[in-house]
This record gives sequence, structure tokens and C-alpha cells, in this order.
Amino acid sequence: MDAALAEARSAAARGEVPVGAVITRNGQIIARAGNRTRELHDPTAHAETLAIREACAALKSERLPDCDLWVTLEPCPACAATISAARLKRLYYAAPDPKSGGVCHGPRIFTHPQAHHAPEVYSGLLEDQSAALLRAFFASKR
Amino acid sequence: MDAALAEARSAAARGEVPVGAVITRNGQIIARAGNRTRELHDPTAHAETLAIREACAALKSERLPDCDLWVTLEPCPACAATISAARLKRLYYAAPDPKSGGVCHGPRIFTHPQAHHAPEVYSGLLEDQSAALLRAFFASKR
Repeated sequence: MDAALAEARSAAARGEVPVGAVITRNGQIIARAGNRTRELHDPTAHAETLAIREACAALKSERLPDCDLWVTLEPCPACAATISAARLKRLYYAAPDPKSGGVCHGPRIFTHPQAHHAPEVYSGLLEDQSAALLRAFFASKR
Repeated sequence: MDAALAEARSAAARGEVPVGAVITRNGQIIARAGNRTRELHDPTAHAETLAIREACAALKSERLPDCDLWVTLEPCPACAATISAARLKRLYYAAPDPKSGGVCHGPRIFTHPQAHHAPEVYSGLLEDQSAALLRAFFASKR
């Protein structure tokens, strides 16, 4: 999660909402990304979705069943559904997102019988640091 | 929807699940795409998400508030959440997807108070042709 937080800090430095993600496989980081929605004019360029796309490209596979995702904020519904589609094994996230999260809030993507795959979910790792980074970013925009 | 069906047929010819999408603005098509998940090893490379990314890149905007999306199959939860994030005005889809759809099935993405935007939704246009194309594709794979 330290590496994901570093990606979040880099995103903030680029003027993006500070969220970062890494994907690990057998304890090694195989992909890392920060938010780039503004830079790329791409509403899907959230940190976790960019990391999933990078890992899939690296492994030449649409699925990542032996990989874990670490992200500094609760994934939104689109990213949560992408995590399900990519069959990630575990999801670790730092801070909850009551306004826009899709794992423990809103559509709670993994709870539907229709979800093709639900990862194991762990939350709260480095939550304070991630939340402080997001608060500072939005305070600076006001 | 005819143009979206043509994209779906092209996807089938490439060995991809035959779903196609186009985005229109002021009655003109500004982006068109078919499924490319296998070719790109990318679980996010669904027709409608590729078309949204193409339209956003063309307009240099994360949002498409004066655009409409036409897709041959009910969007999955990830694509539905992306449609919400991109603020598309209207969604037209051909065939329902009881197994994997996220608009009228499963998490019903647009129905949550938390959804930041819900497009107008119209379904059933060219439903029979789209459903027949999907049935023929999956029958050929068995």
C-alpha cells in the first residue's frame, strides 16, 4: 500500500485526484498507476483500471486470477465491476468512499448473485494517510 | 443502431463477442467500436467503453453531456458506470442481458441515489437482429 500511496502522491503532483494503485503477483509488483482522467480526457483512467489494463497487457491475459490489487481509495462501481471481470483474487483498499464507492456503498458490485466473481476484500490499510492526501488535495482546490 | 450492428458483425468476424456501439452528437456519429477484449487482452475493451474513450479523446473532454450512445447489448455494470461518469445524455440498447447486464439487471447502476448521473434509457431497437447475432456466435463456439 506504500507503493500505491506513492502513486497517489504523484497523481496529486500532476493535478489529478490523488488515488494510486498497484497490482502484485507472488509478492511482486507487476503494475502501478495513478489517476490520469484529466490528462487523458478519459473517464475510465482511474488508477486501479489503468493498473489492471497494464497487468493484463503484461501477462497477455484478460484475467488476473492470481493477482492482488492495492488501491488507496474504495473503487467506484466501474472499477469494482472491472475487478470482477478481471477475476482479481484480493482487493485491498485504504480509505472508504461513501460518496462514489461501489464496493461497500451504492451498488455494492460484489454482492449481487449476478457478479461473476467477487475478490476477497480488505480495507483500512493506511486509511489515514490516504484520506489526508485526498482532503489536502480537495482543500487546495477550493 | 444499424451502424452499431455493423460494428457487432465486424467484432464477430474478429472472433470477439459480437457487440457494437456508436456515439452520436447532433445526429452525427463521432465514435464507433466493437468488442476487442480478446485482441487487446483488456477486460475493459467492451464496445461501448471503447467508443466512449474514442469520443472523449476526439472532444478532449472527460464528459459527453450532449452525446448519445447506441449499443447492441445492455451494458454491463462497468460500462453502465462509465456511461454515468461520462454524463452521456441518452442510452439506446438493443438486446437485454439478464446474465451480465447492469442497467435493468444486477446492480442496476443508474437506480442508486449515489449515481452521479443517469442517462435517459431506451431499449429494444433492433433487438431481434442483435440477439440473433449473439446466439449464432455462441452456438458456433460450442
